This record gives sequence, structure tokens and C-alpha cells, in this order.
Amino acid sequence: MKQTVGIIGLGLLGGSLAKALKAYTDYDVIGYARRQAVCDQALTDGAVTKASTDVGTIIEQADIVIFALPPHTNGRVFCDHCHRLRPGQIVTDVSSCKEALVQVIYEHLPKGVAFVSIHPMAGSEKGGYGESSKNLFQQMGWIVLTDDHPAYDEQVAEQLAQMGRAVGSRVEWLPMALHDNYLAMVSHMPHMMASIMALVAGGDADGVTRMKLSAGGFRDSTRTAGGLPSMWREIIYDNRYNVSLALQAVMQEIQHVQTLLDQDDGGAGIEHYLMRAKTVRDRLPLITGISKNSK
Amino acid sequence: MKQTVGIIGLGLLGGSLAKALKAYTDYDVIGYARRQAVCDQALTDGAVTKASTDVGTIIEQADIVIFALPPHTNGRVFCDHCHRLRPGQIVTDVSSCKEALVQVIYEHLPKGVAFVSIHPMAGSEKGGYGESSKNLFQQMGWIVLTDDHPAYDEQVAEQLAQMGRAVGSRVEWLPMALHDNYLAMVSHMPHMMASIMALVAGGDADGVTRMKLSAGGFRDSTRTAGGLPSMWREIIYDNRYNVSLALQAVMQEIQHVQTLLDQDDGGAGIEHYLMRAKTVRDRLPLITGISKNSK
Repeated sequence: MKQTVGIIGLGLLGGSLAKALKAYTDYDVIGYARRQAVCDQALTDGAVTKASTDVGTIIEQADIVIFALPPHTNGRVFCDHCHRLRPGQIVTDVSSCKEALVQVIYEHLPKGVAFVSIHPMAGSEKGGYGESSKNLFQQMGWIVLTDDHPAYDEQVAEQLAQMGRAVGSRVEWLPMALHDNYLAMVSHMPHMMASIMALVAGGDADGVTRMKLSAGGFRDSTRTAGGLPSMWREIIYDNRYNVSLALQAVMQEIQHVQTLLDQDDGGAGIEHYLMRAKTVRDRLPLITGISKNSK
Repeated sequence: MKQTVGIIGLGLLGGSLAKALKAYTDYDVIGYARRQAVCDQALTDGAVTKASTDVGTIIEQADIVIFALPPHTNGRVFCDHCHRLRPGQIVTDVSSCKEALVQVIYEHLPKGVAFVSIHPMAGSEKGGYGESSKNLFQQMGWIVLTDDHPAYDEQVAEQLAQMGRAVGSRVEWLPMALHDNYLAMVSHMPHMMASIMALVAGGDADGVTRMKLSAGGFRDSTRTAGGLPSMWREIIYDNRYNVSLALQAVMQEIQHVQTLLDQDDGGAGIEHYLMRAKTVRDRLPLITGISKNSK
């Protein structure tokens, strides 16, 4: 029997997921958005068969409820509406930072409701439904979080993994306890560093002149600094313990590089360092299968 | 009368310049490459009308000599062959780091030979003639360095600026004395940071697992870590004083961000910081006209 997926939040990720599920699976997709205009647009696009500005309506009619709001809003909306959930329903979320949210969910989840968290590694520095695309998940990672909590269900996890494969993603399994630390290293710290580099190179009186001299390297390494501050504030601040650890590791590396720059070895130490980094970075396309924009 | 451009070094930059000058200007283009196979390929491609593994031949037949070898090799080859230069000839270079090289050039340049340095802000982490393209310079910056040395010639500078416009670049004028410091901030430091982030996130035993969880942000912010260590060693080590200053500025910013993460303000300080960085980064496409890959 056709299952109904209820997407709570039709922003870039939720909207893209609606479009992708519609295009590549048999799920019936319905969705909640705060603004009526987004509901109307999603209906017009055929991304959902039903859209509502009332969360409760969507939760009650869905077999699988996907929370795709900003992290804090996910937690608040979940708490406000968790009493509507019924045994047999499946709950998941697509948040970038799990610990705080998942604690709240485990605390309030009604008995008999399964919860398996996922994290599609897709996005853009441009947010909102208007930027959403059915192909956002193609060739990207789709993390399914394993856990030993009673609400975790292996069959549900496999179903959500299959959903990821269906929309073109590569499924990665990860224990919940590692998620926030690992994501700080590969996503939240690099995001923070993009902002730091943008400000160091372009933030003062000579910044505009300097940025005119930049090329593709600066463009790419600072791209995520264009992301939505209100969203990234929640992700980074929620995960501040791990982000801080990652930044600490970066500072130690910088200090190491400074000693290499100070050596009178004609640059041999720097070349060795760059070679080690290249060996690591060259593995990325091989293990993730990325190709576009990798040049 | 048709002028002859002699490109010394047909790597990614020199090869691309040969192809671009051939495609978009009236210059006759000849070139030097160390390996006969590259000479043969450039001739086959029609990128040059003459190619030689003998530098002297190319220098003697060119009206405009463009040094496009790695920085140290540029200096060595220039010194070995500067006695062949004759009054009325024009010399330029496309190096990423100017101070050491330009000092050597000024010291040995025969009287009556004009020298104006340029820096096309184009490249790729993949090097070599095989990666060269006539469109490498489209929409990129093309820095022409002004100077008050007697060998500097305003008319020559304008001619080289025109060459940049012809191959599709946006010309930027910059005093020589500022070049290495500014480039450290927008190019060499970000390059070093890409290597540092690749090693922090992916350099240890869990690195492969972590990198599997990464998305477009990590891919882009570490892209340049895939660059040629032997080339970047020269650029970064030659400019180590300025790179070190820029890394120092990055460390100060990281420390500032750490204090924002430690504040119990719900992330307000972090959001303000991210907003400042976004304001700066959002200016980049406006001032440089970049569009592709900026999303």
C-alpha cells in the first residue's frame, strides 16, 4: 500500500526532498510550510499532493513524518505536536546537528513510534523552497544514524536508507554518538573557516581591492560564508563543543605550519606537508564518487 | 606589424595563454617547453607556430617574452639567458609571488629592455599542458603590476593589460609593493588552509569515514589542497613572511570565534559574526563578476 510521507518544512532541503520523492519513488508526499505562498507553490509544482500551514494536519495524515525545519524549530514543533503521533508511525529528521534535538525527541516520543534520524549531505548557501531541486541529492551522501535506543528500528532504518538510494544518494551508516563530532570536522568547522577567511581577506578597508585579485581558490574556499547566518548559527552553536575542538585542531596545525615556514630548508617541510594533504584530499572523489565542481 | 610572443614554459598557464592568444589575438605565438612531447603537442594543437626545447631560440625570436615557468625556474632560466635580451624587447612574467623574482630580474635586465610584471588569476589544481585551455582566463582577474623602476614602461603595461582583456579577463592594476601581501591573503593563505582542513578532517585513522560524510562545502573548501605540492611549495615558501602574517590573522580570528562559542548568548554572537562574513563574501561576485561555480 502506498505510504504517505509528511514533510514538515518545505525549505531547500524539505522542498527538494518532496520533489525528489515525487519524481523517483511511489510515496504520496504531503507537506507543511509556515507561509501559504510556499504551500501554493509546492502544490502548483506537483511536489506535494497536499500542503498545509497547519503542522498537526500533516503529522496526522502521514505514515512517515520528516522534520526538515531549522534545528531549533524542529525541536519546538516536535514538542508542540508529539502528542498527535500514534503507534506505527515513523519519525525522522534531517538536522545537521543531532545531540540536543534527538535528546528532546527521545524524551517526548510516544511509545510505539519509531524514530531513526537521517542526514542528507546536500545543501547550498542559498536556502528556501525557491532553490529546491529534485536532483539535490544526486551523488551526495545520505547518512542513516544507528542507535541503541528502544525507538530505533532496523527495518525503518533500512527503509530510510532505501529512500536515500531512490533519490540518487550514497548511503552511509553512522553511530549516532559519532555524528556531531564528525560533522563538526567535515562541515561545521570548514563553514566557520570560510567565514573567517572571508573576513581576514576581505573584511577591512582594503578588502574590496584584495578580493578583486582573488581567483577560483578563494571563491570556492569561502563559498559557504554566503550561507544563511540564522540557520548556521543554530547548527554551529548547538554543536559548539565539537566545533571548538575542531577549531582547536586547526590552530595546532597552523602553528605547525608556521614552524615549517620558519625553517631554512628551502621549503622542503612545506612541500612534504602539502603532499600529505594532497594524498588525503585526492581520496575524496574516490570515496565519495563526486565529480562535478571537483575540478 | 605582427608581434611575436615567446612563452617560456607551456604548462597549464603558459599553454592556456598560447591557446588564448592564438584564438583571440593577432600575435604570433612561439613557445619553449622542456619536453619535446609538449612542444610537439602544442604545434599539433596550433597553439604555437614554433616550439623549441631551447630557451635561447625562443627568447631571441620574440618581441614579448613571457616567463611562465614555476617561480624558481623562472628566475634561474631568466638569469641564464638574460644576456640574449636586446633593447626594445619586452619581458614579463606570470608568477604568483613577485618579490624575489622581480629583484633578480631588475638586477640582471639589460638596459633598454622593458619589464612589466603581470599575474593572471587563473589556474587549477591540475597542472600541465594537457589541462590547458584557451578559455582559462575568461571572467578571471588579470593583474598588471605598476612600479617606479626605470624598466617599467606605461605603454608596455597598457599593452599587457590589453592582452588580458583580449583573452577575456578583467584587468586590475596593483602597485608591485602590495602584490605579495595581498596575494598571501586571497590566495596563498586560503591554499594553505585547504591543506590544513583536509588533514584535520581526513588525515587520521578515521579520516576516510569522516570524509564519506562530507558534502559540497568540504569538497569546495579543500579543493586547492589537490594542487601540485612542488609548485605551491615555491609560491608559499617564497612568500612565507606574508603567508605567516595571514595565518597569524586567521589564528586571531579563530580565537575570537572561540570566545563567541563560549558565550551563553544562544548563538547571537556567532550569528552576528556569520552575518559580517556573509556581507563581505556576498560582495565577491559583484566586484569580480564571477558566476559559474559560485552557487
